[in-house]
Amino acid sequence: MNYSADYTAMDREALMQAVQMRMSERRFTHVLGVEETAVALAKRFGGSIEKASIAALVHDYAKERTDEEFQLAIEQGPYENKTELLKYGNAIWHGLVGAYFVAQELTITDEEILDAIRLHTTGAAEMSLLAKIIYVADYIEPGRKFPGVEDARVIAFNDLDQAVAFETKHTLLHLIEGENLIYPKTLETYNRWVCGLE
Amino acid sequence: MNYSADYTAMDREALMQAVQMRMSERRFTHVLGVEETAVALAKRFGGSIEKASIAALVHDYAKERTDEEFQLAIEQGPYENKTELLKYGNAIWHGLVGAYFVAQELTITDEEILDAIRLHTTGAAEMSLLAKIIYVADYIEPGRKFPGVEDARVIAFNDLDQAVAFETKHTLLHLIEGENLIYPKTLETYNRWVCGLE
Repeated sequence: MNYSADYTAMDREALMQAVQMRMSERRFTHVLGVEETAVALAKRFGGSIEKASIAALVHDYAKERTDEEFQLAIEQGPYENKTELLKYGNAIWHGLVGAYFVAQELTITDEEILDAIRLHTTGAAEMSLLAKIIYVADYIEPGRKFPGVEDARVIAFNDLDQAVAFETKHTLLHLIEGENLIYPKTLETYNRWVCGLE
Repeated sequence: MNYSADYTAMDREALMQAVQMRMSERRFTHVLGVEETAVALAKRFGGSIEKASIAALVHDYAKERTDEEFQLAIEQGPYENKTELLKYGNAIWHGLVGAYFVAQELTITDEEILDAIRLHTTGAAEMSLLAKIIYVADYIEPGRKFPGVEDARVIAFNDLDQAVAFETKHTLLHLIEGENLIYPKTLETYNRWVCGLE
């Protein structure tokens, strides 16, 4: 990959090391898969390759923190509906709250990158190109194996918004089949991207 | 049926007539099916038979109003998030807003009955026994034919809360398969009754 002056191969190496220290080998392999896919999507849709690489590398940075660390971060942070947010778990916290750890510990300040991390699990009604890329790359990276992933990959490189819709619909169906809690933001994503609610 | 002094067979006749005038024969047959089921559920779970009969008879009273009538009622009424509510359609309005027409035109003032009408399509995290009865009766009345309705009937007479959960889960799956808008309150119902969120 060729990087701009702002993001050298050495920066990427340092970031990768910081991320790798924080997670299992298996998760790190997933992170590298998301990076590869995110960069490919950024190339395809004219997004920033550097931001795609950085956001992908750090998107799961906080996933192996304890519940207690997240709860403390929520209690001390600027979140709306803290009481509600505390009822959810790692699946929701590692993105929405994980961005805080990324900002604090990796000194990443780019709000577009932080927002893409915040939204990578739930999506949102409003998403930047980068947020869409990370949301979709996380779903279709080469390590993912589930019925429909090949369809998702084809759609993603054809129409990113349609890929957001496809992923949201199938994730919701999967969550409901398993009787898992659904964070309200995920429904906003569904109503916007699947049903076109403005 | 035997009614209390507050609700005579004549009252019921008058209510049936007012309701019948407002809808197709097919919908009126559905309404009578919901009443029969709601009364049976009220007997089974110790609810008020009179309230079950009244709420069932009027639950779809407003379903054949025009969108314009609902939009006007929303604009002039005491609804939170009017802008959001206006984005939905008859499926949501005929319950949430339909209760207003019932109160105005049929002079029904019992808040438990009005609330059961409001919530009969979306459910809610908090539901009275009557609200659960109408929500479930609407789903399992004898005219309903869909895969799983027999299971729903068995569950309903065994455990009403489980029937609320069953209905909510399957309704959500059906809505998402069809890529239909989902009103946020339906998700609250799901998170509470299917997933146990307090």
